[in-house]
Amino acid sequence: MESVIQEKGNLSIHTENIFPIIKKFLYSDHEIFLRELVSNAVDASQKIKKLASYGEFNGELGDLKVVVKLDKDAKTITISDNGIGMTADEIKKYINQIAFSGATEFVEKYKDKGEDGKGDKGIIGHFGLGFYSAYMVAENVEILTKSYREDAEAVRWQCDGSTEFELSPAEKADRGSEIILHIAPDSEEFLDEHRLRGILEKYGKFLPVQIEFEDKIINNPNPIWTKSPADLKDEDYLSFYKELYPFSEDPLFWIHLNVDYPFNLTGVLYFPKLRNDFQGQREKIQLYSRQVFITDEVKDIVPDFLQLLHGVIDSPDIPLNVSRSYLQADGNVKKINGYITRKVADKLSEIFKNDREGFEKKFDDIGLFIKYGIISDDKFYDKAKDFCLLKNTDGKFFTFDEYREAVKDNQTDINDTQVWLYTTDEKKQDAFIQSAKKRSYDVLSLTTVIDSHFINALEQKLEKVNIKRVDADTLDKLVEKDVKLESILSSDDQEKAKKIFEEIAGNKSANVQVEAMPVDELPVVITFPEFMRRMTDMQASSGQRSMFGDMPLMYTVSLNSNHPVISRILQSEDESDQKVLAKQVYDLALLSQGLLSGSDLTQFIQRTVTNL
Amino acid sequence: MESVIQEKGNLSIHTENIFPIIKKFLYSDHEIFLRELVSNAVDASQKIKKLASYGEFNGELGDLKVVVKLDKDAKTITISDNGIGMTADEIKKYINQIAFSGATEFVEKYKDKGEDGKGDKGIIGHFGLGFYSAYMVAENVEILTKSYREDAEAVRWQCDGSTEFELSPAEKADRGSEIILHIAPDSEEFLDEHRLRGILEKYGKFLPVQIEFEDKIINNPNPIWTKSPADLKDEDYLSFYKELYPFSEDPLFWIHLNVDYPFNLTGVLYFPKLRNDFQGQREKIQLYSRQVFITDEVKDIVPDFLQLLHGVIDSPDIPLNVSRSYLQADGNVKKINGYITRKVADKLSEIFKNDREGFEKKFDDIGLFIKYGIISDDKFYDKAKDFCLLKNTDGKFFTFDEYREAVKDNQTDINDTQVWLYTTDEKKQDAFIQSAKKRSYDVLSLTTVIDSHFINALEQKLEKVNIKRVDADTLDKLVEKDVKLESILSSDDQEKAKKIFEEIAGNKSANVQVEAMPVDELPVVITFPEFMRRMTDMQASSGQRSMFGDMPLMYTVSLNSNHPVISRILQSEDESDQKVLAKQVYDLALLSQGLLSGSDLTQFIQRTVTNL
Repeated sequence: MESVIQEKGNLSIHTENIFPIIKKFLYSDHEIFLRELVSNAVDASQKIKKLASYGEFNGELGDLKVVVKLDKDAKTITISDNGIGMTADEIKKYINQIAFSGATEFVEKYKDKGEDGKGDKGIIGHFGLGFYSAYMVAENVEILTKSYREDAEAVRWQCDGSTEFELSPAEKADRGSEIILHIAPDSEEFLDEHRLRGILEKYGKFLPVQIEFEDKIINNPNPIWTKSPADLKDEDYLSFYKELYPFSEDPLFWIHLNVDYPFNLTGVLYFPKLRNDFQGQREKIQLYSRQVFITDEVKDIVPDFLQLLHGVIDSPDIPLNVSRSYLQADGNVKKINGYITRKVADKLSEIFKNDREGFEKKFDDIGLFIKYGIISDDKFYDKAKDFCLLKNTDGKFFTFDEYREAVKDNQTDINDTQVWLYTTDEKKQDAFIQSAKKRSYDVLSLTTVIDSHFINALEQKLEKVNIKRVDADTLDKLVEKDVKLESILSSDDQEKAKKIFEEIAGNKSANVQVEAMPVDELPVVITFPEFMRRMTDMQASSGQRSMFGDMPLMYTVSLNSNHPVISRILQSEDESDQKVLAKQVYDLALLSQGLLSGSDLTQFIQRTVTNL
Repeated sequence: MESVIQEKGNLSIHTENIFPIIKKFLYSDHEIFLRELVSNAVDASQKIKKLASYGEFNGELGDLKVVVKLDKDAKTITISDNGIGMTADEIKKYINQIAFSGATEFVEKYKDKGEDGKGDKGIIGHFGLGFYSAYMVAENVEILTKSYREDAEAVRWQCDGSTEFELSPAEKADRGSEIILHIAPDSEEFLDEHRLRGILEKYGKFLPVQIEFEDKIINNPNPIWTKSPADLKDEDYLSFYKELYPFSEDPLFWIHLNVDYPFNLTGVLYFPKLRNDFQGQREKIQLYSRQVFITDEVKDIVPDFLQLLHGVIDSPDIPLNVSRSYLQADGNVKKINGYITRKVADKLSEIFKNDREGFEKKFDDIGLFIKYGIISDDKFYDKAKDFCLLKNTDGKFFTFDEYREAVKDNQTDINDTQVWLYTTDEKKQDAFIQSAKKRSYDVLSLTTVIDSHFINALEQKLEKVNIKRVDADTLDKLVEKDVKLESILSSDDQEKAKKIFEEIAGNKSANVQVEAMPVDELPVVITFPEFMRRMTDMQASSGQRSMFGDMPLMYTVSLNSNHPVISRILQSEDESDQKVLAKQVYDLALLSQGLLSGSDLTQFIQRTVTNL
């Protein structure tokens, strides 16, 4: 039996235990090897440039370039650069020592240099692990390298993926490194030109050093987000947009993001033309870290309602895990989120103030963002309430305050509450809109998929405003006023009419009532109480199955006691004639609500054809 | 200048370089620490049980249990087990040596044991890294442990997240380990009871050893997928379903997956009641690895068309990266994919053969899977073509072969091709369905969201079958036969009628033609050529913006030359009367296609009310 003695010591790690994990399990996607090796080559090129700028390298820089070559017959992929190169000692330090990051060391060493004396930001490497991702696809990796230092000797390093390496003198004419991957049999999918180009374009499209593949430069080393907005014209933003999304229409406008503190973030976000297309537009924002593509799943960084935007975000401060495939939970992420929201609100407010007309023209597209933002983010609402617009059925736009003023006189009810009328479908609700207009009521056009949620949000935020769909009730009840119309029907006749139509409706969810309306209204009007209908709408738009089935639970059948056809129905002596006539006006009411369908509609058409 | 000499050596790794990465960047989600530590505790419990079964431990096993305790005041979370415990030497081996997996060592040592002599599968650990995830949330971690070995002395280990540890003798009455996390200030969110329970339930709901939190067992250690189907009844499957999805309706049926070779996979997949609800049902399948929850994003493992299924898949062979947050690209994944598809097809085929009636009842729900599978997977089609059903408007079901036989006599056209008629909306197309039925044509009900794609797939697979929507043309043209009806109108009159209606249509996309139809057809029939309409449908269902806008590009207006109203229009002497009548029958034709809306509909209703 052992006996425990108090003891201090250091945690240890054995290469033979950790190396297999680094090779095989660190990265989820095997194609990542190319991102890592090309990033290393870019770093080597950036370093020589920086050394030259610090006066530590006085030779010819030449044309800095990373070249990726595929040799199908030899089953190799080679990544070469004419960057800083390595001496044998540096190989021992940076390659033989796993997880010793040469990039971090470089940045640390020169942290007081750089143009602004704040050190250098252009180096990608971080963990010192990327190189070993080569072994995800290669059974053998060679490095042929020659340092930029005067009289440096070239070296060849080689390792078959065991922990044993071999280092030997070599011949190499020029400065730089060549990484030669001997692709393993189970990874031969990467010995394909199209596949390789695809991976290069995915991760390397905006790397800061030229990347050549098959004699062509595949990247744009100076994407606009790395430039100053002052140096850019509209055309630059538009042509960059086309570069990102080749088959898209021009965006409406854009925001150039540029922040240093408390985190580093640059980027350009575009407002696309959305129309009513709410889905399927996501995953369009690309996340970069020092110009290396990371992912297009930015849901944690960009607020939900702004994921409809397009564009690019680049930040070395976004916390990524070691394989960079995953965002990490982190306080910074929330700050970034808040920053982006604020910038978007400020930009919208600026356009609204400087160019109201242009803003209105774009509102069909940007309204979706704004409304979505209002629903989901109170801070955004505080800014947006001054520039969010309401559009009426005549195509006129109002801010909330302007609209309140516009309808104040005519649409304030007996409870001193404004009733705002809206339509969700100008065509379907045309008959009701026409009736409302006869009384000079204004009708808002709230027809997009999120408007039902938007209306709820508005009602909660605005005081003394009730928002009702134009067919939620007969007009006299929508906006209740003191003066009422008289009915020409006796109360007996009203009761009789009610019974006839109750029988025709044949439906317990139909609430038949008689009301004195103007003669030019229809004889029968079918309406849907706002609350019930809104429940149904919300459920439908949230993708839930409606509890109410195809037809809302309750609807109101209002008989216009002042319409001559109602009188004729009551006076009819033949019961069958009476029924046919009542059925016809009832069907017409259904029709005006788009509710006559199936065999009922077929019969209505037959009946109408026969009576022509 | 150094001189390079040929040299061999070993890659090395320094703890101070890799430890920070393991602590901070390996796992994307900080909450993972609990999954890892509880899994370790479960492993310790499983090991003591196994040692007992091998006769290597003869003491009392007791009630094996993992207890998680929260102490808000002390700011600690403690995970205790009464498992195998550790001696000081074992601490040095398994804890002080990072990435040395005690679990792997254990499995290796006992690989010839186990009930079947094939070694043991119940151990979760793999990489030997999970313990250190504690440092994502803790500034200090203590281990208090006592080995199961006789006369073992308890030890206390402690490390503040630097690479320096301290080991000392300790007092502990019982066998087992206690991991005490002193939560760091930036991770105090985890000192919340609800949060902790949430994480435990997410990852540990089906761990194989009891997990206690706040005096309650939070897991089901024997979920049904670990049992043999022979020992399970329907109730067991149904109650497990309720356990997984508390508020769901009962599933239709299920498949118990159980495979050993070439990969290990168990699980239960349920067919939910889908109806027409195609979206928002995804991410319901949960992926486990040895009863530890991994993710509910299984898109790489489960074929796309089966992601509508619910349930659980458990496989230690699904390749995960080291943080287990990500599936890795791997050949096994494709095999698993194929296996699941095959099992699902076999199960469906079995139900079809054994219980056709039950199959038909469920078809509204399972049809969606089957059709989706037919569209996307040729191997699935080969099996499904014998059990996929078509339903007609009378609710009768047919296999493809049965349907071919059923309509052969009446719906084979002059080109010896069968014309299968279908409706996408029985209500909207009612008038056309009624007309088809008058000729004893059968009409299929293909009303779900994927049916437009399904129809395309069918036409490609079935020979000599044309599939047309019932309103794609007038009936005589849909199913062309030798015999034609005679027209009572002269060709002059036909030309005159054509002109009148061309003017009313007022639309270049309307193709007006005169056709001799039976008298009981409508005077005017509007139809949409199949091809154009199908393009529009496909675009709409794929979420693309239609190039055609609201109305399909071309439609056909067929005037029934044998209808008396057409004759009356031609004979009318007052041009204004003629127009009103023609407009009315044209509107009725639009109405039967659901195309009369907006102000046209409002005017039609007004006009009809006035003429009552």
